[in-house]
Amino acid sequence: MSDVSVELEDGLESLDDEACMQLLATVPVGRVAVSIGALPAVFPVNFALSDRRIVFRTGPGTKLDAAVRDAVVAFEVDQFDAMYHNGWSVLVVGRAHDTTNHLDLINGGAQVLPWAPGIREHYVAIDIEFLSGRRITRGR
Amino acid sequence: MSDVSVELEDGLESLDDEACMQLLATVPVGRVAVSIGALPAVFPVNFALSDRRIVFRTGPGTKLDAAVRDAVVAFEVDQFDAMYHNGWSVLVVGRAHDTTNHLDLINGGAQVLPWAPGIREHYVAIDIEFLSGRRITRGR
Repeated sequence: MSDVSVELEDGLESLDDEACMQLLATVPVGRVAVSIGALPAVFPVNFALSDRRIVFRTGPGTKLDAAVRDAVVAFEVDQFDAMYHNGWSVLVVGRAHDTTNHLDLINGGAQVLPWAPGIREHYVAIDIEFLSGRRITRGR
Repeated sequence: MSDVSVELEDGLESLDDEACMQLLATVPVGRVAVSIGALPAVFPVNFALSDRRIVFRTGPGTKLDAAVRDAVVAFEVDQFDAMYHNGWSVLVVGRAHDTTNHLDLINGGAQVLPWAPGIREHYVAIDIEFLSGRRITRGR
């Protein structure tokens, strides 16, 4: 994918939209960043991709469930190699919607089975409005 | 560590302060969640622990460098097993400081060597003011 990337000055290359979408599909867990009150918080969730949406499930009444209601949130995935110091990350920013009553809109959503036991019957979709990715460059 | 944890209703057990600090020391990469303008963003960084501070390095003039200036930020680490659906996460919330000119305050800080090439001469420390952790519970 090096032909579709732009090298940045700080030792990171920028990944284009297609590369970001491909990488998003390779990992099962991402992190939702939200504000709770005035404080930032991050929650890991296992997720699925449905077209240009991130789909995950929450438990009704949880902090995460409340925080994502029609809020603009960030969603991040990454993968790093501690031995070789390689890695990449992809950042999504977009509005989160409760799609529990609109499961027809999220084709793959029904296959999101929460890893943690407990009731998580709310489906949340994040529209991918802003997408960016970076990869550590080597060999310089 | 099960004796120091409290099981939550949603299939996650809460980890106490000591367990969180121990887990923070087991991974080299975490994610800083900040606001840029009114939008949330997440940046992965490799970090070190120095007492109750998270220490990492940034490049002068980068988005991350600007975003953490005396801001309250969230910092998250996690580890998940895709096969067994086990995992844990730890969330730190605290104020970030530029400690470039106060390296005596961050004992371990000088050992934070950025993985990505490029100039990252600013040292940032996040005071651990709020600390929480969760682990997926099994066998129910």
